[in-house]
Amino acid sequence: MATAVTDPEPRVNDGFRFYFASWYKKSPYFGRTVEAGCRSWDLYNHMLIPTLYDDDVAEYWHLLEHVTLWDVAAERQVEIAGPDAARFTQLLTPRDLSTCEVGQCKYVVLCAPDGGIVNDPILLRLRKDRFWLSLADSDALLFALGVQAFAGLDVEIREPDVSPLQVQGPKSKPLIRKLFGDAIADLRYYRCADAELDGIPLVVSRTGWSGELGYELYLRDAARGAELWDRVMSAGEEFRIRAIAPSDQRRMEAGIFNYGNDMDVTNNPFEVTGLERLVELDNDHRVIARAALERVAAAGVRKKLVGVRLGGAPLTMWLEDFWPVTSGGREVGRLTSAAYSPRLRINMGYAWVPVELSEHGTTVLALSPDGPIEAEVVPLPFWDPAKTVPKA
Amino acid sequence: MATAVTDPEPRVNDGFRFYFASWYKKSPYFGRTVEAGCRSWDLYNHMLIPTLYDDDVAEYWHLLEHVTLWDVAAERQVEIAGPDAARFTQLLTPRDLSTCEVGQCKYVVLCAPDGGIVNDPILLRLRKDRFWLSLADSDALLFALGVQAFAGLDVEIREPDVSPLQVQGPKSKPLIRKLFGDAIADLRYYRCADAELDGIPLVVSRTGWSGELGYELYLRDAARGAELWDRVMSAGEEFRIRAIAPSDQRRMEAGIFNYGNDMDVTNNPFEVTGLERLVELDNDHRVIARAALERVAAAGVRKKLVGVRLGGAPLTMWLEDFWPVTSGGREVGRLTSAAYSPRLRINMGYAWVPVELSEHGTTVLALSPDGPIEAEVVPLPFWDPAKTVPKA
Repeated sequence: MATAVTDPEPRVNDGFRFYFASWYKKSPYFGRTVEAGCRSWDLYNHMLIPTLYDDDVAEYWHLLEHVTLWDVAAERQVEIAGPDAARFTQLLTPRDLSTCEVGQCKYVVLCAPDGGIVNDPILLRLRKDRFWLSLADSDALLFALGVQAFAGLDVEIREPDVSPLQVQGPKSKPLIRKLFGDAIADLRYYRCADAELDGIPLVVSRTGWSGELGYELYLRDAARGAELWDRVMSAGEEFRIRAIAPSDQRRMEAGIFNYGNDMDVTNNPFEVTGLERLVELDNDHRVIARAALERVAAAGVRKKLVGVRLGGAPLTMWLEDFWPVTSGGREVGRLTSAAYSPRLRINMGYAWVPVELSEHGTTVLALSPDGPIEAEVVPLPFWDPAKTVPKA
Repeated sequence: MATAVTDPEPRVNDGFRFYFASWYKKSPYFGRTVEAGCRSWDLYNHMLIPTLYDDDVAEYWHLLEHVTLWDVAAERQVEIAGPDAARFTQLLTPRDLSTCEVGQCKYVVLCAPDGGIVNDPILLRLRKDRFWLSLADSDALLFALGVQAFAGLDVEIREPDVSPLQVQGPKSKPLIRKLFGDAIADLRYYRCADAELDGIPLVVSRTGWSGELGYELYLRDAARGAELWDRVMSAGEEFRIRAIAPSDQRRMEAGIFNYGNDMDVTNNPFEVTGLERLVELDNDHRVIARAALERVAAAGVRKKLVGVRLGGAPLTMWLEDFWPVTSGGREVGRLTSAAYSPRLRINMGYAWVPVELSEHGTTVLALSPDGPIEAEVVPLPFWDPAKTVPKA
């Protein structure tokens, strides 16, 4: 549980003993993450995903200074293929996909007929008629299958055999160059391409969940997971590569959200700071959330997920439960994420507040289990708003 | 991990320390389950659900002999309401809902346009124009929202504030009678009704995941979870009530499946023993999986999920991973569930096999981590095929 403490220990809440079971899928890299010292996993898209190796702060600094390898096989893909793939994919998201080139990636929200956010995947346009949606934690495959029922479009929709790794950190570029050569290493930010490593079939994209310079390796044959892991680790030795879990601190610095925690299907993109820009409806594309989102755009929103700077001593770990947010003694919202940024030396947070309390500089109180902490609404992201780091 | 052992200890695989986090929802009964001795939880529909109190075999016998209370708030509901609710709900499932009365429940499969199983919920018809789907572990809400996009029907679809408890075991009837009176206690099997307990709003159904006599209490106000739990526990004292986790042994005796483990969206209902009967298409109802399922019905299936009786020493715990199934030295399928039935004194299993190996009496080999175990295909369920126990 994230609590304000002066003593940095313990870094983690107590938790409980969790038993492996056949209904939790294991990543193709699972054995390698155990060998690399992973000692706790999260559940994400019905799959185990590393959440802690040795120390989340040590992992954070390694990400900032060197290069890190993440098992994110739990980022499952929805593949949409066929003659109508582009038109079908456009139905699912209010982003304008008409300018999305083959080999381009886009961060998108998938929206339900009422405008609710179903998922916030990275979209990859692999071919003119083939898209992947690289998912956050919800069964968006089922959403796409539902839309397919009456869309009247010719597409095939499935979860393909794809298991991503993330290679993140400043040394990721020389490592990728060593592994794949210049064409892949020099991919522009949010571009992707087919690749191969000793015959292992891959797609590589210049994306990631860290705000650092980074790549994702989409393994297209689960049977070759250990081989790919070993190849990357071995080539990365000279760059001091190490395995880490996704960094909550670093993703919060970058203003990245955790779907299902920060927002869910009861929220629309206009309610989330930074997602408003993903609604691009100044066109006549067929989009299932169009009418609902146009209504929201006209009427405005009543609440907003904003960045906050929290007072108090450095926070440790993530939140065990949401913290109530109050103003004038009245509960007005909740804090969904909080982490201490070791380099900014501030406590970062995301909070749902009424829109009238969402202006920068507004202060509210976040009720931690140890007492109230002042929270000031601040711009997002906390670091590198121009994204010069990942674009480098 | 389920392994063939002669020594009954250890009953559990090693597992790992799992940390609470705000992205895992806690049930309204969470605190009470901790107090009642729950020491491990599963993740189900993004929520923690008890998986072990003290001893799964002791919990099993208590279920068979007395009455037990289960926190199954993770059975989230999809509510479909509005003038077209009946027609919309019929789109999602091949069961014939035209004969489903208000106050009736049905076990259904939700099927995608290709016939794949999206979920296998209990459907409750609460009103002429209001249905609940009490879900297994998948985001079927997103599926329904997808279908809504172009169905052209007037419905509202949402996840309501509903948190079920199961009250299961032979003494559940006198307990429910004591709490709610005759009308609720004497509900027929698979019937439901509105109810109230000291002003706590509920729906009560005569259903459950155990094959025992039992009820579900659908709490309609999460804020009153502890109050409801205490009220049931206190009234149940004279019947020796205790909290347990869902019993894997008992559900397997009853031939009940665990969605996401035994079958998933890549399987259709004709492939799963016992689910064939849920496809009722001898009518002209509009059902999105109709064409696909009619094709499967005509062409037949190539593989089948069947019941098997496993040899070897009594198995402990559940499977950590699927076990390969072989025939004539060739891998032909996988074992998805296995448990030792304390009263039948046999090892029960579910296995995917090619249809030509699905006849009763066929034997295959299941490759446990400790070596091959003979598996004979047998009828499902293992116990009480006429359901005289839960109908009592």
